Amino acid sequence: MKFHYPNGKKYVEATLPSKKPKAKPKQVSYSNRGMTLEEDINETNQFYLTFQKAVIHKKPTPVQIVDVHYPSRSAAVIKEAYFKQPSTTDYNGVFKGRYIDFEAKETKNKTSFPLQNFHEHQILHMESVHKQEGITFVLIRFSLSEEVFLLPYEALRVYWDRMAGGGRKSIKREEMEEKGFSIPLGLHPRVDYLKIVHQLYF
Amino acid sequence: MKFHYPNGKKYVEATLPSKKPKAKPKQVSYSNRGMTLEEDINETNQFYLTFQKAVIHKKPTPVQIVDVHYPSRSAAVIKEAYFKQPSTTDYNGVFKGRYIDFEAKETKNKTSFPLQNFHEHQILHMESVHKQEGITFVLIRFSLSEEVFLLPYEALRVYWDRMAGGGRKSIKREEMEEKGFSIPLGLHPRVDYLKIVHQLYF
Repeated sequence: MKFHYPNGKKYVEATLPSKKPKAKPKQVSYSNRGMTLEEDINETNQFYLTFQKAVIHKKPTPVQIVDVHYPSRSAAVIKEAYFKQPSTTDYNGVFKGRYIDFEAKETKNKTSFPLQNFHEHQILHMESVHKQEGITFVLIRFSLSEEVFLLPYEALRVYWDRMAGGGRKSIKREEMEEKGFSIPLGLHPRVDYLKIVHQLYF
Repeated sequence: MKFHYPNGKKYVEATLPSKKPKAKPKQVSYSNRGMTLEEDINETNQFYLTFQKAVIHKKPTPVQIVDVHYPSRSAAVIKEAYFKQPSTTDYNGVFKGRYIDFEAKETKNKTSFPLQNFHEHQILHMESVHKQEGITFVLIRFSLSEEVFLLPYEALRVYWDRMAGGGRKSIKREEMEEKGFSIPLGLHPRVDYLKIVHQLYF
């Protein structure tokens, strides 16, 4: 995992306001740098690891390996393999002795988050973790408004069951604002989700 | 993950002792059925999951994917990929709210366990987990004697540092018996390591 300093861009000294300032000062934007949510989370986890705040990693993509070649004098080459359905969430680890387990998804929708982004086995996995008193949640980014929410598993489960009962197949933006927790975005770390985890579960 | 009942072999009714009984009754052997330690642990973890004792999974093998083909109407095929060095241990999960993290290795040696079975980054990972108050250890099987030991990270670290300081490159069998904990082997689950974890850390 590479470690990018602040945002991977050159430092440019702040300049004076241009002669034609916009009517309203533009809000500082931290996240819209073409980074995916996954990249932001990976760098946040690297920050946590470096500063000994937590040990949280993304799991490797599960792959079914069918054929491997062993060329002499060089590394083994996988020549045929297939993507497997993951049986768990993507991220897990430890924070102050407690088990942390979550999935991260982003949507370009403005008004709702489609539940089809999750698979049933992931929900079942989170249910098992929840029963074992692990801390489990999802991180959801609305890409266009650049907002990231932490939604605890218990809340997600309510919307999942609503869909299973024939109800709407998404979580409304207002519902997310009500039941989820907006994560402060920054430069370092970018998505400081443990701040919310600490408030909610400790 | 498949779920094999007891040992994957047909049930055969117990027979009366043969006419020529051996001098000493043979000790019941549970583990020497050609199963690797990894297979035994995977089935043990499946048992824990089914009976809601813990949620512990093996992480997928990390692979660097270079080339993927997308044949029409069928699944994507990975055509070129390479094995990556894992940056963590192989197993992690949650048991009664606590974070569990371990590596499993077996050796055919009779008198010692070679430390080269571990990589430095795995030791560093366990150190980070230990600092976060996670529960971390290694499971070591001496294949020939069919014994499995749980060795807590703190004890492993002492032997690792001894090697780093120029000392022996292995853990003696007697040291393992002194600092490690022998795991009871059974049919279901096969390697009940949480029994020891519960005694040691709770």
